Amino acid sequence: MENFTFYAPTYFAFGKDTENETGSYVKRFGGKKVLIHYGGGSVIRSGLLDRVKKSLEAEAIPYVELGGVMPNPRSGLVYEGIDLCRKEQVDFILAVGGGSTIDSAKAIAAGVPYDGDFWDYYQGKVVNEALPIGTVLTISAAGSEGSPDSVITKEEGMYKRGATGEALRAKFTIMNPALTQTLPPFQTACGITDIMAHLYERYLTNTKEVECTDRMIEALMLTMIHEGTRAMEDPDNYEARANIMWAGMMAHNNSCGVGRSQDWTSHDVEHELSALYDCAHGAGLAVVMPAVFTYNLQHDVMRFAKVAVRVWGCQMDFDHPERTAAEGIEALRRFLTSIGMPANFKELGADEKDIERMAHSCCYGDARTGTIGGFVSLDQKDVENIYRLMV
Amino acid sequence: MENFTFYAPTYFAFGKDTENETGSYVKRFGGKKVLIHYGGGSVIRSGLLDRVKKSLEAEAIPYVELGGVMPNPRSGLVYEGIDLCRKEQVDFILAVGGGSTIDSAKAIAAGVPYDGDFWDYYQGKVVNEALPIGTVLTISAAGSEGSPDSVITKEEGMYKRGATGEALRAKFTIMNPALTQTLPPFQTACGITDIMAHLYERYLTNTKEVECTDRMIEALMLTMIHEGTRAMEDPDNYEARANIMWAGMMAHNNSCGVGRSQDWTSHDVEHELSALYDCAHGAGLAVVMPAVFTYNLQHDVMRFAKVAVRVWGCQMDFDHPERTAAEGIEALRRFLTSIGMPANFKELGADEKDIERMAHSCCYGDARTGTIGGFVSLDQKDVENIYRLMV
Repeated sequence: MENFTFYAPTYFAFGKDTENETGSYVKRFGGKKVLIHYGGGSVIRSGLLDRVKKSLEAEAIPYVELGGVMPNPRSGLVYEGIDLCRKEQVDFILAVGGGSTIDSAKAIAAGVPYDGDFWDYYQGKVVNEALPIGTVLTISAAGSEGSPDSVITKEEGMYKRGATGEALRAKFTIMNPALTQTLPPFQTACGITDIMAHLYERYLTNTKEVECTDRMIEALMLTMIHEGTRAMEDPDNYEARANIMWAGMMAHNNSCGVGRSQDWTSHDVEHELSALYDCAHGAGLAVVMPAVFTYNLQHDVMRFAKVAVRVWGCQMDFDHPERTAAEGIEALRRFLTSIGMPANFKELGADEKDIERMAHSCCYGDARTGTIGGFVSLDQKDVENIYRLMV
Repeated sequence: MENFTFYAPTYFAFGKDTENETGSYVKRFGGKKVLIHYGGGSVIRSGLLDRVKKSLEAEAIPYVELGGVMPNPRSGLVYEGIDLCRKEQVDFILAVGGGSTIDSAKAIAAGVPYDGDFWDYYQGKVVNEALPIGTVLTISAAGSEGSPDSVITKEEGMYKRGATGEALRAKFTIMNPALTQTLPPFQTACGITDIMAHLYERYLTNTKEVECTDRMIEALMLTMIHEGTRAMEDPDNYEARANIMWAGMMAHNNSCGVGRSQDWTSHDVEHELSALYDCAHGAGLAVVMPAVFTYNLQHDVMRFAKVAVRVWGCQMDFDHPERTAAEGIEALRRFLTSIGMPANFKELGADEKDIERMAHSCCYGDARTGTIGGFVSLDQKDVENIYRLMV
């Protein structure tokens, strides 16, 4: 195991009706003037935004609003939010929504106290200072509610890039699983896929003897397969939604990823797809993951066999472990198809002719230096080959 | 799943040589005058205490010392520590040791700013204020390094009781697995047993549909069985020690215990043994757990069968699930014996004639009201019967 530090000081309030306590948590964590940041109409239509506002008003905390966050959130709205916060002397950012809204809120929070262009953080500068952030989570997926990460797309060049830093951890996160019961099935499935991807990105490591975190990741994968299937079959099942919501947070707060190298190839390869076609991140990952894993299988057959046996219930083929390894990838593919995810470029709406361009952007775009991948180092040619497996 | 809150804002620095950073972490978390609290000679002999002092001196942070914490830490030393801190105007408590030292440090930290008797907290008053605490962990066992809990024994009446409160979470915890390599095998085994007990206490729940936390607990149990066995066979194995250390923290920081009722019968039943005979807590638990589980088996056969199948690798007997359930308890017993733990009163040094007295103290002593147990409600007669199973 490698040396590491772990610090996850987010206060989680989990369960039914917890959104009504938002105001008291903002107060507890020192917010005096709030920006409420959100996406489209669903938080308005559901009445959630009103309930959140009411809870702020009950604590006499003033607020301004900025809606309009889109999936694959853009830098344009971030600049707008930074200007608004400075003008209105906002000192606390409250995200009401899913990963896109939270990531956009984090970018604004980092940008307000920063003299330079906030995009610097998305080119590798660590975020050590940001306005305090709170979140009211509406979809189990990105894990941004408990992570120190944010992903934003820059319109100029359509680069989708991530920033990180302890200052980006939310002060508090409100998690009411009931809020996720009304999601369209496609979005629920995208969330399940994203969570599975966060687990695979950590599972695919070159660090030896990390049994504790291996087991934890496997536990969360098993939970997602079981409860994900239940939530798809029975969207109103609160218990399934609750198990998914906690698993989604645990999958990405990094307690199961400490002390080990991680991969993140699938995310990098996917980001090109959602940046170019504006497809849902989860849907992109569903197409990307089996291709990446198949391409990388020979790098560590036993690791792929391990997840196949322990998570997917495959029988170990002791004479031909690579068959078991491949079986596990097939089982993942079947699971993703079963929850309604796309399986190839066509179903995703991607086009073969863009492969070279995407692979180049993935390896060289916006300050990258030619290779990606923490598990297997991949160059542009490799990434092109991976995209071809998805056609 | 039940509604819950979860807040674990401890900063963990994990890995080789991390104890040399103690001073910088004390500084980071605002300590200006430190009490170094520790137990016996091992932290002196190993040079650990000197390294910690050197790191404080490097940051020009003054300190006073209070050693002499014994296993099953006593209230007498706590009162002494409180007086010393007040006299010396200490503003930060640094525990260098295992669970006993950390628990004693927590009691001192809570007592210093409190007008009343610190024991009030060990009779049920929640700890909302305490001096900041840091820990340098030397044994994987109690999980106190990441928990909001503390257990102290009051000499008068020999009551062993617990306190809890978010203020008791350490600000930082230094975890160097190499420090545990020199532990005597018996202490390593006691630690493994304590960690297994923390997992069982959470696993035995009456809350339905808590698959995510069930799976997480199972993952940590599997880790402990595998890595615990390795550490016993090969004490110098850093990787085994590292996996145990992270698992031990995760087992008790409650991320795998949220949203579900918990048991804690085994701990309550054991505390009478270690209070009366001053036996090691882990050794006591090894004798107690199989007895408690056997006594409670009929309350939820399927839960005991589940842990038997998923953790202990038993084959499910679908016609007679109670046989599988019992097989899992036998497997636990065999594991505990294999790492050198006692299996009955005689091996523990306990005496049958004290059973009634212990059961009475367990159910009625020091503000208790007649029953214990979160999984099955047990009265004095039940507790007597459980002790008899250990003879």
